[in-house]
Amino acid sequence: MKVLDALRHGVAELHRELTRYELVIWTAGNVSARVPGEDLMVIKPSGVSYDELSPENMVVTDLHGNLVHGELAPSSDTAAHAYVYRHMPEVGGVVHTHSTYATAWAARGEPIPCVLTMIADEFGGDIPVGPFALIGDDSIGRGIVETLRGSRSPAVLMRNHGPFTVGKDARAAVKAAVMLEDVARTVHIAQQLGKPDPIDPEHVDRLYARYQNVYGQ
Amino acid sequence: MKVLDALRHGVAELHRELTRYELVIWTAGNVSARVPGEDLMVIKPSGVSYDELSPENMVVTDLHGNLVHGELAPSSDTAAHAYVYRHMPEVGGVVHTHSTYATAWAARGEPIPCVLTMIADEFGGDIPVGPFALIGDDSIGRGIVETLRGSRSPAVLMRNHGPFTVGKDARAAVKAAVMLEDVARTVHIAQQLGKPDPIDPEHVDRLYARYQNVYGQ
Amino acid sequence: MKVLDALRHGVAELHRELTRYELVIWTAGNVSARVPGEDLMVIKPSGVSYDELSPENMVVTDLHGNLVHGELAPSSDTAAHAYVYRHMPEVGGVVHTHSTYATAWAARGEPIPCVLTMIADEFGGDIPVGPFALIGDDSIGRGIVETLRGSRSPAVLMRNHGPFTVGKDARAAVKAAVMLEDVARTVHIAQQLGKPDPIDPEHVDRLYARYQNVYGQ
Amino acid sequence: MKVLDALRHGVAELHRELTRYELVIWTAGNVSARVPGEDLMVIKPSGVSYDELSPENMVVTDLHGNLVHGELAPSSDTAAHAYVYRHMPEVGGVVHTHSTYATAWAARGEPIPCVLTMIADEFGGDIPVGPFALIGDDSIGRGIVETLRGSRSPAVLMRNHGPFTVGKDARAAVKAAVMLEDVARTVHIAQQLGKPDPIDPEHVDRLYARYQNVYGQ
Repeated sequence: MKVLDALRHGVAELHRELTRYELVIWTAGNVSARVPGEDLMVIKPSGVSYDELSPENMVVTDLHGNLVHGELAPSSDTAAHAYVYRHMPEVGGVVHTHSTYATAWAARGEPIPCVLTMIADEFGGDIPVGPFALIGDDSIGRGIVETLRGSRSPAVLMRNHGPFTVGKDARAAVKAAVMLEDVARTVHIAQQLGKPDPIDPEHVDRLYARYQNVYGQ
Repeated sequence: MKVLDALRHGVAELHRELTRYELVIWTAGNVSARVPGEDLMVIKPSGVSYDELSPENMVVTDLHGNLVHGELAPSSDTAAHAYVYRHMPEVGGVVHTHSTYATAWAARGEPIPCVLTMIADEFGGDIPVGPFALIGDDSIGRGIVETLRGSRSPAVLMRNHGPFTVGKDARAAVKAAVMLEDVARTVHIAQQLGKPDPIDPEHVDRLYARYQNVYGQ
Repeated sequence: MKVLDALRHGVAELHRELTRYELVIWTAGNVSARVPGEDLMVIKPSGVSYDELSPENMVVTDLHGNLVHGELAPSSDTAAHAYVYRHMPEVGGVVHTHSTYATAWAARGEPIPCVLTMIADEFGGDIPVGPFALIGDDSIGRGIVETLRGSRSPAVLMRNHGPFTVGKDARAAVKAAVMLEDVARTVHIAQQLGKPDPIDPEHVDRLYARYQNVYGQ
Repeated sequence: MKVLDALRHGVAELHRELTRYELVIWTAGNVSARVPGEDLMVIKPSGVSYDELSPENMVVTDLHGNLVHGELAPSSDTAAHAYVYRHMPEVGGVVHTHSTYATAWAARGEPIPCVLTMIADEFGGDIPVGPFALIGDDSIGRGIVETLRGSRSPAVLMRNHGPFTVGKDARAAVKAAVMLEDVARTVHIAQQLGKPDPIDPEHVDRLYARYQNVYGQ
């Protein structure tokens, strides 16, 4: 259970990054982590405020969203997270927010063009748009997976809804959510007064390769 | 008096959400709660800064705004809150702010279109505009009530003034105020660079029904 | 000296409102207070960061900006504050910032139109633009005074520079600076997507009269 | 080693200003300081979060970016910082961020026009754009140095990337980064609704001369 305890702690903590970077309001955003080697995930409880999150009230479900441990109902987005884990074995963390600028691109159904080195580094090209999908079945999860499979991007902008991001673990998915909102904002602002220069696709490839392999410790 | 003490405490506390989400500056916004089963309400005192609010200095008035308990004058918006409680018995909480983006829509007299799932969830459709009304009599209250009666929305954008939100209790009204500003901002930003896709009205109905009945614990 | 100590304390404290509402960066904004009944003022020292301000390092000058008490050089804007106190005896506090939205209106030399009840309440009409003036003599002070004399507004937008606000005391001048930035932002945002409705001048007069006389405790 | 300890402490602390003014997200920005009289610099470690920075984990490299003291790999931007120190002996501090508004100007490859007294004061004229350059060799450093040599500005907007600022020490470079973002935002906002008035070049010269020589203690 040590791994599970560490994941509960980590997932609860990572929600603080969502509030710190103002990616969420009230209770409208969530982080989950796959339990390595098991068909389980740790996720935020539904409708609980960020101030009240703790390792103890994190919820454990199987990869169909059925409650395994915990007293609270899991996030209303659990089905979407679970679908991603079932279909993308390389993914260890999923994040959903309605962060302002990313959601604005999503509302117009417009991908974020790769006009910043930070986008090339982290997203490897344009950040794609996923379909409109209703909550309540596998539609959102399927939309996320189908969109991400055609892209190097760890982020998808779900139409009229908001972004989902993935990563090798929950921390990487949160990092992608933070960087997504940052570049969504910067490119929006750049476009308000003109047209940003595109980056040569070959340069995008070189930036992406370097950042994925060399950056950090 | 236990209920009243709890409401004083709750109303004082809920003002922190207004400052946390930057919906208010200085002293320009207020929360009230109906006292269940009595013709009374608890409201912020007028012109007192948010740092100085406490359960003790909350004001209790009747539903015509006359002071019942407390040493300070009630909010200058008390008449509007009181009118809402007199005419909408299902309402247990009212919030008024001048939050930036919601007020910008109000200044143009333009409803916020339902182009985000979050708007469908919480507001059930477009967020409506109320009339211009002067402070000092029942005009503001009447404008709020007449506008909200024709809508599923718990929020109304009063022209040239700012938003009022209602809820089954004060917490629900504050939540609506927080979500209102968030969607007002996101849709504004989406519209700056193009036209967001509308959401099919049938989908709006399904999202609204689900969120009102299934979300949370 | 008790009055002077209280003013030092008050002026040091009020700078916190400038940082709280993000009206200033680094050291670029200042508050001053007239010492009632004496030809003296208390003002921020030049180039000192907001974290380091204390009652002890506030500077006292005469109303020509000459140092009377204190070890630090007074704000580089001291001449402008002093000119206002010499020529507007009803003014007890002056604030200068480069707050973003107010400064943007100033850069275009465009008054902020009275399209919000909050503008009618606090500013009594459009918020006027003052001339371009170089620092180093009485030009800025003269520009402030000449502009404010033709207006009910406690705020002036100095061209290519930023706002100055005045009040019966330093707290009122800070309040005006906070409200100015708020309405500058809201009207800017409203105008980005259309034209806000003006408020009937007669209604502006009624709102202004009520707010100046009835609001608060 | 006392100087070096003080620099480690100072550089670690100065990163707080980057987060305070929201110039950086996650780990995407860095401050460095030249060690006076030695061919060494102190710089942020790569990929370490701002919460975890301390004097102890700051990295010391030579002016070709080779590690001299420290257990962590230096910032991935170390080569650019080092190039600046080698070619601009008057520079004692360098800062790199992707601050939103400055980066938006950089994405369009558009200099920030000198339409505010604050720009004249600190930057002495328009804030220039540097070339697009890939990370991995001296291209970024060369682009910075060539651009800054033709300007009084301590800031350069590197195309599709973000700003670099320099100063006589690390604190001055951080101050320039903070002021850059502030004026980048204000001028952007001013231009959204019209055209700011330019400042007469002679006035720019007078403002710059005064601010560089008279301001502060």
